[in-house]
Amino acid sequence: MTDCIFCRLIKGELPSDIVYRDDDVIAFRDIDPKAPVHILIIPLKHIRTVNDLSPADQMLVGKMILIAQKIAEQERIDQRGYRLIFNCNRDGGQAVYHIHLHLLGGRGMHWPPG
Amino acid sequence: MTDCIFCRLIKGELPSDIVYRDDDVIAFRDIDPKAPVHILIIPLKHIRTVNDLSPADQMLVGKMILIAQKIAEQERIDQRGYRLIFNCNRDGGQAVYHIHLHLLGGRGMHWPPG
Repeated sequence: MTDCIFCRLIKGELPSDIVYRDDDVIAFRDIDPKAPVHILIIPLKHIRTVNDLSPADQMLVGKMILIAQKIAEQERIDQRGYRLIFNCNRDGGQAVYHIHLHLLGGRGMHWPPG
Repeated sequence: MTDCIFCRLIKGELPSDIVYRDDDVIAFRDIDPKAPVHILIIPLKHIRTVNDLSPADQMLVGKMILIAQKIAEQERIDQRGYRLIFNCNRDGGQAVYHIHLHLLGGRGMHWPPG
């Protein structure tokens, strides 16, 4: 997906503030943060939306949650707390069509969640 | 966890509008909905927060996301879109200390997400 900005970011063709990387997943700071900590966790594999996850992706998406947990600890927001979000399609507010898990914390998050 | 309202709900000791159930997961409508569709997906196993997920729970938490995807389809909000949320601890806005994935849709979700 050469026209996907997240695929380009993974390849290093676009700058990003990377906080975590392994063979499946990369995490970097959101360029338009909505909280003191706002990090995106994405799979290296291009998956367009949550609707496009297949049963074979179950471990991968589970890993994204566990990596978010580890990053929250690393950012020292695990005890005060944080919010994890997947947006799917237009009503969900999805801005980039390569799935990404938002991790937000460092402030009290409000309810409803947007 | 006899004092956990979600464990009691799983046992049928509290009423709920269940939309999905299997051997690992149950899903039911939020009693204080923040969108036309607002469903909670929870594991039958009592896990207090996202921080308490162990590596052994990777498949389980991945399954929660895939079940949310299926319920979004069943509720016919998959194409317009939806938002999935885990709240962890106080800053995250966690209200019940048994992990639950919020599925919200049926309206455009705003940004920031609370």
